Amino acid sequence: MTEPLRVAIAGLGTVGAGVIRLLDANGALIARRAGRPIEIVAVSARDRAKDRGVDLSRFDWVDDTASLAADARADVVVELVGGADGPALTLTRAALANGKSVVTANKAMIAHHGLELARAAEGRGVALKFEAAVAGGVPVIKGLREGAAANEIGHVYGILNGTCNFILSKMEAEGRDFAEVLDEAQRLGFAEADPSFDIDGVDAAHKLSILASFAFGTRPAFSDVAITGVRHVLAADIAEAATLGYRVRLVGVAEAGKNGLFQRVHPHLVPLDHPLAHVTGSLNAVVAEGNFVGRLFFQGRGAGDGPTASAVVADLIDIARGEFGPPYAEPAEALAEQPAAPTGERRGRAYLRLMVADKVGVLAEIAAAMRDAGVSIERLMQRGANADGSVLVAIVTHEGPERAVAASLDRLRGSPSLVGEPMWMHILES
Amino acid sequence: MTEPLRVAIAGLGTVGAGVIRLLDANGALIARRAGRPIEIVAVSARDRAKDRGVDLSRFDWVDDTASLAADARADVVVELVGGADGPALTLTRAALANGKSVVTANKAMIAHHGLELARAAEGRGVALKFEAAVAGGVPVIKGLREGAAANEIGHVYGILNGTCNFILSKMEAEGRDFAEVLDEAQRLGFAEADPSFDIDGVDAAHKLSILASFAFGTRPAFSDVAITGVRHVLAADIAEAATLGYRVRLVGVAEAGKNGLFQRVHPHLVPLDHPLAHVTGSLNAVVAEGNFVGRLFFQGRGAGDGPTASAVVADLIDIARGEFGPPYAEPAEALAEQPAAPTGERRGRAYLRLMVADKVGVLAEIAAAMRDAGVSIERLMQRGANADGSVLVAIVTHEGPERAVAASLDRLRGSPSLVGEPMWMHILES
Repeated sequence: MTEPLRVAIAGLGTVGAGVIRLLDANGALIARRAGRPIEIVAVSARDRAKDRGVDLSRFDWVDDTASLAADARADVVVELVGGADGPALTLTRAALANGKSVVTANKAMIAHHGLELARAAEGRGVALKFEAAVAGGVPVIKGLREGAAANEIGHVYGILNGTCNFILSKMEAEGRDFAEVLDEAQRLGFAEADPSFDIDGVDAAHKLSILASFAFGTRPAFSDVAITGVRHVLAADIAEAATLGYRVRLVGVAEAGKNGLFQRVHPHLVPLDHPLAHVTGSLNAVVAEGNFVGRLFFQGRGAGDGPTASAVVADLIDIARGEFGPPYAEPAEALAEQPAAPTGERRGRAYLRLMVADKVGVLAEIAAAMRDAGVSIERLMQRGANADGSVLVAIVTHEGPERAVAASLDRLRGSPSLVGEPMWMHILES
Repeated sequence: MTEPLRVAIAGLGTVGAGVIRLLDANGALIARRAGRPIEIVAVSARDRAKDRGVDLSRFDWVDDTASLAADARADVVVELVGGADGPALTLTRAALANGKSVVTANKAMIAHHGLELARAAEGRGVALKFEAAVAGGVPVIKGLREGAAANEIGHVYGILNGTCNFILSKMEAEGRDFAEVLDEAQRLGFAEADPSFDIDGVDAAHKLSILASFAFGTRPAFSDVAITGVRHVLAADIAEAATLGYRVRLVGVAEAGKNGLFQRVHPHLVPLDHPLAHVTGSLNAVVAEGNFVGRLFFQGRGAGDGPTASAVVADLIDIARGEFGPPYAEPAEALAEQPAAPTGERRGRAYLRLMVADKVGVLAEIAAAMRDAGVSIERLMQRGANADGSVLVAIVTHEGPERAVAASLDRLRGSPSLVGEPMWMHILES
């Protein structure tokens, strides 16, 4: 086993350069652990001239990235081009079809096309690995696929987007509102110029749908994820949550049950005695609950060149060691097709925040809407008037069906007493 | 790959029975994930008549446990007999020599004999796996061996004994002293009748020495672990720590550095913004810091039949999938022999607690001893007299060499002002 594992890298952004730096720094160690060296035989990206802070002159430069799929020198193509479709997908399909293994960090592509690509990999007996696609450097796919493999997993959930968590943590620490903190995060490079994939929850939903397949043995179903981002969380919500003993986190939750596959990304109130409440800054974390192991908790850096390169190279080491099993642990054909579970049947406690006009009868109107929809109120707080004359009303409900909460908000919709849209967050139980 | 993986189970305590229950409950799922079924072909334990809550009549019962090592039906022997030496070791050696893979939960045996057993497994090309030996159900060996395999690991540390953490958490929550809480833990079954392996830190040291080999590629060196348990932690220490923003945890710390391999199990003050501070009750948790991935954090249930069986069966699934790599990731011959690093060279902040006589000049004596040893005091608290007339003095030092702190305590040793032994805890930095 002294033949090196030969790797072609497609895409040389921060992650591609990180992979090269990592192999430079830790190559000898990796060769001992993998049983053989990992050798880069070709690299390709759009712009050859760009300075990436690593010496590329040692590697064969290929102008036509797509041609790496047929490059006879490479055992593995590392796809770091990005994008759900387009060149990344074309390259991955072609590489697998040519009998090459593929390692990718591309969550969008895997969320949308993972099943098709897994079938292709299995058909050729090659590996398709994407540890870096979920929670960056945290080995959570390995944790589910192998570490917890003996368990039926009931729930998998977590904090899957570092940008949102950074923003929520900063809002919490500084009492500032969303727009202001987003602006700062963009200036500091913690949020993209177009942040909508992150802050509107799409990125977290990509990752959640990938995790769900590993946890439950179900087919990837990204389009069934119900998604709400963090755009409408107010500093006032975070302050109310704090007085109640909770922190606000964007949590992706997936559950497999009798009614189908439930997948939702939504802001949640997380109690302080739950490990997710202590996930701060740009960290990611995943909880999996197995029927024998109980609750497992994984935390670490979910983005950045170092952590992402760490996961990419961990996949390469697995391949060097001969790990060519089905990408989703079970063969793609065995993955169950499950309908999306209706959210209305779920039971839980809700946090509702309404901005209302400061006038007589508003609280009675809200209380009546709740009563008529069958929602039982555990706690109601009203805070003094804002500059625009509106008043904040925050409600925590007793446990009940989400259907009833939705109905109560329907009853209030269009009422002249309301200023803007109500905010509904789910309460995670410890 | 529809041939089952054939398993013989040696030892039918709670973990052995748990493995059978797990395979009963999740067998179909496991067969899909492993690519083939896992089948128990023989079981053995001391007492055939004992009711273990599982139906053993389906399995071939073998009276002579040692004979499983040569049982032609079995591909794998699951060693759950326990004990560092004796029958467990004899069985494991013989099974490996006969070309059978071995899965074990036996941390004492692996801590003492892991290197010899790994050599034997590699020599025969079979697997030796022991995920359950560290942190029970938490896949932390897999996390280091594979998930973080691309990294040079600088530190690995964690909470590795659930009994100690349960006791410290309960002391903290209820303000009660050690002996009282231990007594209750024993009545509740959370501590053994002879708890010394747990509370004196030996069990945590076994696990730490195993983790160190994976993290640093060094030979197991259990006898080099410096061990202090939790017996002498007072409720008053926990209260002082709380006023300073810390929690008291028994933390095992391993580091590989220029001066050798540092391994220590000791009570620590853990700051509230460190994830280990939020590990409560009988949970275990491990932190690994890699040069690319940054800080990884794993948490879950470190003991009990379900979590331990989960880890044992995860190892069986790996073997069923064909994972026969070197037990410590690197070949046993490649593991570096490192001297034990001298603790005195380490720098850090210390918490010192002294019980002193309530008389004039005691504080001056303590302060002089610190000054003369070159220890700089960050904070000193004196609390009113106890029933026996003694006074508690708690000191937090500035960062400095541990050598100096040891020298300051040496200066005070034998002083008539001191009542009992001083307590020295290290302060973990966030």
